[in-house]
Amino acid sequence: MSNFSLREPVNLASTGIASFAKTAICTNLDDLIADIAVIGAPCDISIQGRSGARLGPRGIRLQSTRFSYSPEGSYDPERDDFYLSTKQWRVVDCGDADLVPGDLEASFANIEAAVRTIVSRGAMPVVLGGDHSITIPVARGLDIAGPFHVIHFDSHLDWSYTRGGQRYSNGSPCRCMAAMAHVDKMAHLGIHGIGSSQKSDFADALAYGDLILSPKQIRKIGIAETLARLPRGERYFVSIDIDVMDCSIAAGTGSPMHGGLYYDEMVELLEGVARLGTIVGFDLVEVAPQYDDLSGTTCYLAARLISDFLGFITKERELS
Amino acid sequence: MSNFSLREPVNLASTGIASFAKTAICTNLDDLIADIAVIGAPCDISIQGRSGARLGPRGIRLQSTRFSYSPEGSYDPERDDFYLSTKQWRVVDCGDADLVPGDLEASFANIEAAVRTIVSRGAMPVVLGGDHSITIPVARGLDIAGPFHVIHFDSHLDWSYTRGGQRYSNGSPCRCMAAMAHVDKMAHLGIHGIGSSQKSDFADALAYGDLILSPKQIRKIGIAETLARLPRGERYFVSIDIDVMDCSIAAGTGSPMHGGLYYDEMVELLEGVARLGTIVGFDLVEVAPQYDDLSGTTCYLAARLISDFLGFITKERELS
Amino acid sequence: MSNFSLREPVNLASTGIASFAKTAICTNLDDLIADIAVIGAPCDISIQGRSGARLGPRGIRLQSTRFSYSPEGSYDPERDDFYLSTKQWRVVDCGDADLVPGDLEASFANIEAAVRTIVSRGAMPVVLGGDHSITIPVARGLDIAGPFHVIHFDSHLDWSYTRGGQRYSNGSPCRCMAAMAHVDKMAHLGIHGIGSSQKSDFADALAYGDLILSPKQIRKIGIAETLARLPRGERYFVSIDIDVMDCSIAAGTGSPMHGGLYYDEMVELLEGVARLGTIVGFDLVEVAPQYDDLSGTTCYLAARLISDFLGFITKERELS
Amino acid sequence: MSNFSLREPVNLASTGIASFAKTAICTNLDDLIADIAVIGAPCDISIQGRSGARLGPRGIRLQSTRFSYSPEGSYDPERDDFYLSTKQWRVVDCGDADLVPGDLEASFANIEAAVRTIVSRGAMPVVLGGDHSITIPVARGLDIAGPFHVIHFDSHLDWSYTRGGQRYSNGSPCRCMAAMAHVDKMAHLGIHGIGSSQKSDFADALAYGDLILSPKQIRKIGIAETLARLPRGERYFVSIDIDVMDCSIAAGTGSPMHGGLYYDEMVELLEGVARLGTIVGFDLVEVAPQYDDLSGTTCYLAARLISDFLGFITKERELS
Amino acid sequence: MSNFSLREPVNLASTGIASFAKTAICTNLDDLIADIAVIGAPCDISIQGRSGARLGPRGIRLQSTRFSYSPEGSYDPERDDFYLSTKQWRVVDCGDADLVPGDLEASFANIEAAVRTIVSRGAMPVVLGGDHSITIPVARGLDIAGPFHVIHFDSHLDWSYTRGGQRYSNGSPCRCMAAMAHVDKMAHLGIHGIGSSQKSDFADALAYGDLILSPKQIRKIGIAETLARLPRGERYFVSIDIDVMDCSIAAGTGSPMHGGLYYDEMVELLEGVARLGTIVGFDLVEVAPQYDDLSGTTCYLAARLISDFLGFITKERELS
Amino acid sequence: MSNFSLREPVNLASTGIASFAKTAICTNLDDLIADIAVIGAPCDISIQGRSGARLGPRGIRLQSTRFSYSPEGSYDPERDDFYLSTKQWRVVDCGDADLVPGDLEASFANIEAAVRTIVSRGAMPVVLGGDHSITIPVARGLDIAGPFHVIHFDSHLDWSYTRGGQRYSNGSPCRCMAAMAHVDKMAHLGIHGIGSSQKSDFADALAYGDLILSPKQIRKIGIAETLARLPRGERYFVSIDIDVMDCSIAAGTGSPMHGGLYYDEMVELLEGVARLGTIVGFDLVEVAPQYDDLSGTTCYLAARLISDFLGFITKERELS
Repeated sequence: MSNFSLREPVNLASTGIASFAKTAICTNLDDLIADIAVIGAPCDISIQGRSGARLGPRGIRLQSTRFSYSPEGSYDPERDDFYLSTKQWRVVDCGDADLVPGDLEASFANIEAAVRTIVSRGAMPVVLGGDHSITIPVARGLDIAGPFHVIHFDSHLDWSYTRGGQRYSNGSPCRCMAAMAHVDKMAHLGIHGIGSSQKSDFADALAYGDLILSPKQIRKIGIAETLARLPRGERYFVSIDIDVMDCSIAAGTGSPMHGGLYYDEMVELLEGVARLGTIVGFDLVEVAPQYDDLSGTTCYLAARLISDFLGFITKERELS
Repeated sequence: MSNFSLREPVNLASTGIASFAKTAICTNLDDLIADIAVIGAPCDISIQGRSGARLGPRGIRLQSTRFSYSPEGSYDPERDDFYLSTKQWRVVDCGDADLVPGDLEASFANIEAAVRTIVSRGAMPVVLGGDHSITIPVARGLDIAGPFHVIHFDSHLDWSYTRGGQRYSNGSPCRCMAAMAHVDKMAHLGIHGIGSSQKSDFADALAYGDLILSPKQIRKIGIAETLARLPRGERYFVSIDIDVMDCSIAAGTGSPMHGGLYYDEMVELLEGVARLGTIVGFDLVEVAPQYDDLSGTTCYLAARLISDFLGFITKERELS
Repeated sequence: MSNFSLREPVNLASTGIASFAKTAICTNLDDLIADIAVIGAPCDISIQGRSGARLGPRGIRLQSTRFSYSPEGSYDPERDDFYLSTKQWRVVDCGDADLVPGDLEASFANIEAAVRTIVSRGAMPVVLGGDHSITIPVARGLDIAGPFHVIHFDSHLDWSYTRGGQRYSNGSPCRCMAAMAHVDKMAHLGIHGIGSSQKSDFADALAYGDLILSPKQIRKIGIAETLARLPRGERYFVSIDIDVMDCSIAAGTGSPMHGGLYYDEMVELLEGVARLGTIVGFDLVEVAPQYDDLSGTTCYLAARLISDFLGFITKERELS
Repeated sequence: MSNFSLREPVNLASTGIASFAKTAICTNLDDLIADIAVIGAPCDISIQGRSGARLGPRGIRLQSTRFSYSPEGSYDPERDDFYLSTKQWRVVDCGDADLVPGDLEASFANIEAAVRTIVSRGAMPVVLGGDHSITIPVARGLDIAGPFHVIHFDSHLDWSYTRGGQRYSNGSPCRCMAAMAHVDKMAHLGIHGIGSSQKSDFADALAYGDLILSPKQIRKIGIAETLARLPRGERYFVSIDIDVMDCSIAAGTGSPMHGGLYYDEMVELLEGVARLGTIVGFDLVEVAPQYDDLSGTTCYLAARLISDFLGFITKERELS
Repeated sequence: MSNFSLREPVNLASTGIASFAKTAICTNLDDLIADIAVIGAPCDISIQGRSGARLGPRGIRLQSTRFSYSPEGSYDPERDDFYLSTKQWRVVDCGDADLVPGDLEASFANIEAAVRTIVSRGAMPVVLGGDHSITIPVARGLDIAGPFHVIHFDSHLDWSYTRGGQRYSNGSPCRCMAAMAHVDKMAHLGIHGIGSSQKSDFADALAYGDLILSPKQIRKIGIAETLARLPRGERYFVSIDIDVMDCSIAAGTGSPMHGGLYYDEMVELLEGVARLGTIVGFDLVEVAPQYDDLSGTTCYLAARLISDFLGFITKERELS
Repeated sequence: MSNFSLREPVNLASTGIASFAKTAICTNLDDLIADIAVIGAPCDISIQGRSGARLGPRGIRLQSTRFSYSPEGSYDPERDDFYLSTKQWRVVDCGDADLVPGDLEASFANIEAAVRTIVSRGAMPVVLGGDHSITIPVARGLDIAGPFHVIHFDSHLDWSYTRGGQRYSNGSPCRCMAAMAHVDKMAHLGIHGIGSSQKSDFADALAYGDLILSPKQIRKIGIAETLARLPRGERYFVSIDIDVMDCSIAAGTGSPMHGGLYYDEMVELLEGVARLGTIVGFDLVEVAPQYDDLSGTTCYLAARLISDFLGFITKERELS
């Protein structure tokens, strides 16, 4: 969407309505015509840490307005290449899936249906959380795009069985996905922190065949080797918990962590993941603007990682 | 609780562990021996506005450490009187009722049982929210102390029937209480704001016999007349949504409101309510420190209203 | 705009894309079909105080999502009346007029053209500033809707002749409007503060025939008398500088002021102004979210004053 | 101090070095030639509440740059009068009295000597705190300007005898002044809050002959009557603790209070006090920018009250 | 301490009273039965930089509630090991040592006595500052646990002789410790910054036999070599000034520094130090929550470093 | 400037008037006698990102008070050397060049004249921005010190031709300098980010002969090699956009960037640049305190880089 102007509009970052990257808005999914469909899942009712992630989609959209996509594409001086030309790729913002207060089942149902509808319309869903429990309905809604492997970026393993009886908290999405028929293998990148999960969770994940690497382990073996160890296949779903990033740049989340990944590392990992196969969709969760700094560092990081990843994904499709 | 000191400790506000007003802690309710039992209900999963109220109990406790109760009592120069002498009144902090992520029923059950246990131990429960839905289990747990009238301070009527199927949101506590056998009449003080509730909600409340007054209406008739219109009876439960207070002093909440009550007005109303009869318990809800200012103005307001109200309640008991 | 939902969506305040009051978006003004057209003028390059007001439209839109308009209208319990039914009134968000960095003339031209186009399409423009200099092109663009009187709410008189040669700063809009052929009389409500304008500015304004009242003077004579003194006529343009409001609720602006108006006073004044005649348009300027509190008190105040005023304006049209 | 400019400089509020009201700086007191000398006392080591007031002088200076004094004087439209013409009055910023970490005695000695030197140079000292304990050396340094009455604006009585052995804390300045030979009577305006002082402190103050009025008592009898009850005499020292102001506009302090004075009330009181007799000096203490809002509301309030009071004091001298 | 619950409580991080890691509270040191005793020393009256560290203990406790210790211990997936099992180790929070406003001597005496009492009860003291001057009484109180070497993590050398006569400021603890009979050698890790100390201070420290290494020097020689150069002995006292950490993760302190240590580096250093010998106690000082971000990054860093170090210390004891 | 004191003043960081590094103030440039003249250019009207940089000079000055220069010089323990002895170097703060609201030409003229006057007085100008457009008048004013090469630190190339007709925005300074007769070659260090400039801008810069290196490219070839590739010559102008620094330590700017330089890297680069030849002046731009954290991390970084660079520049002069 462009500003009103007598001349070619400048569309400065601070101006205009805050859809994702100022792309066109389509809240009626039945009318969706797009290659990439961004949708918010502002549900934070099953979070274990500090609540607030329901404002994540808004926060990410606000900072994403520093980007805008053009016919010639966005130029990257380091790679000497262009990305996300609007002549080739149609990115659309679909607004949010409805949140029902205190009703996890109804809220999940909306998210699941939204994702499935987007896929059925031929677009790749990009879901803005919300806490990490929203990955459960996202993965469910992707059933028609599967089977697929899962690449999971997080500080936490998220293989909890239950918290006080709750099996669908933000600590459980990976255990839940493991139980889905259309989910194949999982790789967990960035896991670290004493006491963040129980040993039995790790044991179950390993028994399921998961790959688990901490930031220090990734640095030790290198990014190329890390990518080489990821499961091979045709299709991948990627789930990014923003708390995988070091809290020096990702304080705006419910459970920020010291010792996480840095921006350049994450970009290199995402670029590699984009080359593994078809990305059927991805989510980025746990952004809570209430805990972000006044400059919006975490929200901008989230927006930038999404846009970077979209660039890498579409570049692969262009090349293949 | 007092600091370690070689002399009589000064116990400055900024020091010591942050229990409510630095009172003794008793997290095992079966051991509770107290006149007044403060307990947190850090549940915000059924909130309609901005989430965050699960940190309310912590935020209130932190600011409450500016108070401390002593054997001689706290002196009020304007009333030339002493309040809350520890020789007469034992106030205890019971910690929090457990929150189960995403599970409203289980979280409510913990709150209800905690309140009922406190009452059964002979203490008056003072519940720190959490969003306003926690008033539902609080009122349930007070059944053994009823029947009672309800004095409800709020900007919003909270008589919603359902939000997307959810009947136990923070917009529904008054409709829920109206359906409880041990709840008698209700008075709603401070209600205002275009569009905050539907006309049908007002109609149902009036049909139930509720008194509804806005801040402007209270100012017009005066506080004495306001108090005179409250239902008469033996017992009262009081529920205070912090957003009844003007947002110039209560920004730290999910849905702050312009045009609310000011501190002196609220204190005068609480002093009058304390004189109506036996207060069987009260809650103060919707404090969300994430939206408070850096000075903790809202959290301190909440702590101070609670302590003021406790002073008035115990003064009445001393006099009767 | 509504969220995706399998049932009737709840559309909670924290969800959905942040257009004004979640209304439909129409950034192509040539296609505009609306009764009321909200448009941003995010220009802050001619501000004398702290810069930042270019983020005003975004900040107001974000908080305005606490409102949404419905077919039955928004119910006001105090007036027992409904406002802004979508069956009767079509409110549309037109996005922003383009800002050209450092080029006041080009930025003004965009604002002026946008306003004139909106008027020519039969809609009433509601302009979100930006600093107060944007009132100059707004008033210019309203020429086809004139002649009209100006009701100006502000702490500052804004009749400066020049600041270092600059005749179009945020201190000059009233002097500039006084020189426009289609502008009739002006009333300045809320002016106060030692040293905020020069005596010669006051003298020129009085010579032009302006009414000038401070908050204390308004309180002394009462709101009814204040309204009675306003110029009589058929058409009015209203310009609201948010710093007319007391800084206890309006800190989020470049030059906040102690001793300003309170919310209830302002609402009563706006309700009276709406009854004076046809409001040809209005702006609300100088909101700078960078200086607002974490709760968005000033941005929400701005959104609420706009929505309240729209309610009063449309109510008058319904009644006449 | 003026900005570098090829033309008459505009000297916008946000520009230039932050001395008080951008006045000339004279840090060598032996060279001081001024009518009014502003000096900081950034000492907060004897504070009972939250520390931070050592940054008070900086915070006040920063916001004070919204003022600047000119040859014609600052025009007040409500009083239709001019204030603080630089042709008549020379205001100078003397920087700060040195703070020795953890050494109350040495820090006090510096403040006391600075004040005494300023008085001996024929200027009226205006001291920016620091916590309220700095009033002790300020009052000592004013001995050569006495005897005088004290007008004390505060939420707290500040007549504590000792806190853990400390007799010179920010709770004790009034008891300390009462013991000084050159201090006559004291009036305490704005005192309120349950538990803020012991009854014995009030008893001692009353026995000394002090006048004590709360905000509510002031409102009840009116400002004229309040002023009428103040002690009569030739000379007055005024001490303003910013926490006398309601925390809706004065959150930036160690112990902010609900139920305090509002800006218009305080201005009227200060205007009346300025007419009582010769003001030998005044201080404004307890501003702690760490707890202020992002807009600097408290710091600006402090700067404005100081400048308003200076206007009233000099106006009286002009008239007499 | 555990929340009230009808089932096994979940005890989410945001819930419950904020003692250190939610451990049991014992404010009467004469009753202390513990292996590890956490105690606050909220004294910031001798700080040279920005004040505020008196709120350090509260800030650290608040963030430490993200941890809790269990019978099975906390699992570390990278080391595949368990830490701090409550079956083996009893950690207790002893509240704070009393602060006397403006009285360094009395405040120091309380800290010294508290530490000595804890040691005499057989527990290892972990002291939460407060500014770095509190290390003086901490080291004094540890006399009965000495002689010991000192491992000092800091950006600043802290060997100042005097500041304006003050010999016990936060710039002097190392010079003071050097003069204590029970203090053996000192190693200073992380020292850097132009102008942070005088050359004579460095000369005196080197003359005393101290090891001094900057972050860049540590990185150059590696952590293994750094550890190898530390003094050998039986007992060690460790003092951690949070400003040794890079200000990207430790902004919440009086004098934050660019170019400091990162989390992973510090953890590795602490793990190595734990293996040197018996740690007789440690402190972590200079956390000032007023300057921390809204997410509590610095406070959480402090809590995590303490908990990590406790894990390493107890692991060594388990193994030996 | 020194505090008033009875003894040798301590001049703590938090005290005294905030000139740059507490140096003497000389706002009348015709009287300037100095080696180094710091001057503010608080102009942000041509910024494309978030406005606010007009408060940059104030923000930098405030944090710079943590430094102060002494006769013996500032000691660096790592280099075992002294810097910026006041016996050898006179640093003076000249206040700000006047900003005319909305008038880019007039504001630029003031900056240009100020810089030229400083140079003509024999001092090296150090200019505090303001947005990056101020480099245009700075470079113009340096004409009498040229010809010189330009070393440009930035995330962005700043070779834009026009934004909506504006050729003098903060995206254009390098293209503007390229057109100046006295500007020789340019090197751009730190450039990165997809979409931050158009390919045609890079092409024009390369055609002009510019060196362009990203942070990753600098790390790959090393700092020594980076320095070796810089243009050789006698004189250099250095322009530092604070957004070249990673946003983990430089969030306080209009367009903060992930993936930027870290402090130690930048210091090493600046030390190398200082050795290239005569630095005729430098600016540091785009600091916007509104977006900085509560601790002032970005402002302090700016102050420290300036002071470090001044140390390296003067050290080179001492040695040559």
